[in-house]
Amino acid sequence: MKITILKENFKNGLNIIERITGKNLTLPVLNNVLLTVEKNFLNLSTTDLEMGINWWGLVKTEKQGKISIPAKLLSSFTGLLPDKKIILEAKDKTLFIECEKRKTKIKGQDPEEFPLIPKIENQEFIEVDSYKFCQGLSQVIEVISSSQVRPEISGVYLLFQKDLIKMVGTDSFRLAEKTLSLKNKIKKECSLIIPQKTIRELINVLGEKKEKLKIFFSPSQIMFELVMPEISHPQVQIISRLIDGEYPDYQEIIPKNYETQIILEKKEFLNQIKTASLFSGNINEVKFKINPKEGKIEIFTQSSELGENKSYLLGKTEGNPIEVSFNHKFISDGLSNIESSEVIFGLNKDGGPAVLKPVGDESYIYVVMPVKSD
Amino acid sequence: MKITILKENFKNGLNIIERITGKNLTLPVLNNVLLTVEKNFLNLSTTDLEMGINWWGLVKTEKQGKISIPAKLLSSFTGLLPDKKIILEAKDKTLFIECEKRKTKIKGQDPEEFPLIPKIENQEFIEVDSYKFCQGLSQVIEVISSSQVRPEISGVYLLFQKDLIKMVGTDSFRLAEKTLSLKNKIKKECSLIIPQKTIRELINVLGEKKEKLKIFFSPSQIMFELVMPEISHPQVQIISRLIDGEYPDYQEIIPKNYETQIILEKKEFLNQIKTASLFSGNINEVKFKINPKEGKIEIFTQSSELGENKSYLLGKTEGNPIEVSFNHKFISDGLSNIESSEVIFGLNKDGGPAVLKPVGDESYIYVVMPVKSD
Repeated sequence: MKITILKENFKNGLNIIERITGKNLTLPVLNNVLLTVEKNFLNLSTTDLEMGINWWGLVKTEKQGKISIPAKLLSSFTGLLPDKKIILEAKDKTLFIECEKRKTKIKGQDPEEFPLIPKIENQEFIEVDSYKFCQGLSQVIEVISSSQVRPEISGVYLLFQKDLIKMVGTDSFRLAEKTLSLKNKIKKECSLIIPQKTIRELINVLGEKKEKLKIFFSPSQIMFELVMPEISHPQVQIISRLIDGEYPDYQEIIPKNYETQIILEKKEFLNQIKTASLFSGNINEVKFKINPKEGKIEIFTQSSELGENKSYLLGKTEGNPIEVSFNHKFISDGLSNIESSEVIFGLNKDGGPAVLKPVGDESYIYVVMPVKSD
Repeated sequence: MKITILKENFKNGLNIIERITGKNLTLPVLNNVLLTVEKNFLNLSTTDLEMGINWWGLVKTEKQGKISIPAKLLSSFTGLLPDKKIILEAKDKTLFIECEKRKTKIKGQDPEEFPLIPKIENQEFIEVDSYKFCQGLSQVIEVISSSQVRPEISGVYLLFQKDLIKMVGTDSFRLAEKTLSLKNKIKKECSLIIPQKTIRELINVLGEKKEKLKIFFSPSQIMFELVMPEISHPQVQIISRLIDGEYPDYQEIIPKNYETQIILEKKEFLNQIKTASLFSGNINEVKFKINPKEGKIEIFTQSSELGENKSYLLGKTEGNPIEVSFNHKFISDGLSNIESSEVIFGLNKDGGPAVLKPVGDESYIYVVMPVKSD
C-alpha cells in the first residue's frame, strides 16, 4: 500500500481506534491496528475480541494493500508530526512514513494474522440522534456494577418498544432508567444487553457528535454506525458482542407511590450530601428526616472518630413524617445523573425503595434502596 | 477560642497549610492543623517535622485560644461550605462550626501535643521578588535526583554573592544553574542547600504571588516570609531545615568552549526529540550529528523491535562536524526549562559535557553529559 493523508485526518482516526488497544502480552496482535487501503479509502481496525472499531478516511491512493502496526506507537508518533501531508508506504511488514524533515520506519506484523471483526448481515437498522442517545446512556451507565457474578446486570439493558427506547442500568442496590422517544415506530419490540465497556467506548467516541447513528443488530451482536454525510460511506463502526441472559423484571421495583415526597434544589442538596459524607464513617450511612409540616429535610451523619454534621434544606413537601438512611454515594450518584435544577425525592417506609426524579421531566428515574436499620 | 471568619479567607489559609499534612500513621498529630487565636489573628500551623507552614488571617475574635484538628478533613469540609460567615468555637478538644443551615462538630486533639515549629532568631533578611525567585527555582529543581545516596545534591544549592543569587540543581548527569540579580548588595557571601520538598512547597504556595519575599536563615534553618502589605504582619511563613554538607564545586564542569555549536528553534527541536524518543529503546539513546557546512543537525534513533526515526533541523552552526549521543530525557528536560524561542546547543568531543542555553539570556545554563559510547 502507498497513500498520502493529512496528519489531522489520520490522527483523528487513530484517536478513535486506539482506545481499545493496549498492552496485551498473551495476544500482541490485539495491540495492533490493521491499515487497509481500498480505492480511495483508508480503513483502520482494532479489536479486543469482545468489540471492534472501524474508521474510514479519504486518502490519495497510489497502491492498495494492508499492514498491521502497533496502534499506540503509531498514534503517539502521528500526534507529534507537524500539520502537513504524510506519505505512508507498506513494504515487507514495515511501514515507511515520510513527513516534512522526517523519515520513519515502524515494524509491523503480517496483516493476515489480524483477527477478523465480525459483520452483521441484517440490513435493517434503527436510527437515533447520536448525541441524545449517548447522553441517555451516560445517565444510566454509572450505576452498573462491574462485578461479573451476575453477568445479565453487568451491561446496559435496551428495550425497543413502539416509538421508545428504554435504557436501564442497575447494581441491585439502585437502578436508573432513561426513556428516549424515536422519530419512527419500531416494527417489532425487542430487547438486548450491551456490555458496559462497549457503552463507554460508544460515549467516548461518538458522544459529542450531533449526527444520525444507525443501530444494527443480530441475536448475538450489535453495531453502531456513523456515516460520512456527503457520500453515505461508513465513517465509524463499533461492533460488539451482546450479553446473553434474561434481564430482571425491573419495572416491578419502581415504586408508584411515596409515603413522603419533597422537592429540593439539586445543587444545594448534592453539596449538603457531600459535606455529610465526610462524617459518615465506614458504612457511608447518611440519615434523612423529613418533617412535612415544616417543609424541611434534615441530613445527619455521625462518626465516633471524626465528629458529626447536621444540615437542612427547605422544599415543598407532601405526605407523612419519615426517617430513612441511605448510602451517601448512592444518593449523590443519582443527583449527579439528573440535569434539572430541582429534584423530586420520594421516600417509603419499612425499607421500601426511594426515588430521585428531575422536576418537569418524566424521561428519567433513579431508584435507590435504603440502608437496612438494625 | 471563638471567632467569625469568612469562608473564602479560611479556605485560602487551609489550602496553603494542608499540603504538608497527610496520613501519618505513626505520628497522627502531624495530620493536624493547629488553630491559634490571638488578638484579631487566626494562625494556622502545620509541620512534617522537616518543614513547617504558618498562615495568618484577620478574624473577628470573641475568645482567644487554640485547638488541633485533622487538617484534610477541615479543609475538605470548609471547601463545601457556602461563601458566607463561619463561626468557629473550640470546647474540650472539639471544634464547633456553624455556617448557614449547617452545624458541625469535629473532634480534635490536645493543642499542647502539637509539635513546636522552630523560629529563626536572626533578624536580618534578604528580600527578593517572590514570583521571579520561584520561577528561577522551578528552572533548576527538576534535574535534582530524589536519591538519598548523596544528600548534598538532594537539594537546591543557593549561593548569595554580592548582588546575585545563584541557584543550582544536579543529579550528577546534568546540572542547571540560574542567576538572579538582587536590588541590594548582600553584606557577606554565603551558601546553603535547601531540601527539594521545601522548594516544591515554596513554588506551590508562593510561586504565583508577585510580592516581596523575605528570606531569613540560621546555620541549620531557613524561613521564607510573605507579609500582609497593609499592616506589616506575617501572612505566610515556610520554615525548613537545611541540608548539611559540602556542595560539589560545580563551576568546574561547566564548559567554557564548545567543539561545535548550533542555534535551534526550541519548540521544533523539542518536538523532534519527543518523536525520536519513541524509537530510542531501553537506554533512551538518541544520536545527534551536526554538519556545520550544511548548517544542519540530524537526529537519529533506532530500536530493533519497533523501527527507526530520522529527522533534521536547520540552524546557524559554528565549529567542526560532530556525532554525540544523549539520553533523550535529559535533552528534553533541559529544553523544557528554557523559556526563549531559540536555544544554543553546544557540544564537545570525547565524552565532554554539552550545554543548552537560551539565546539572548545569560542567566540560565543547562549542562548535560553524553551517553558513553562503547
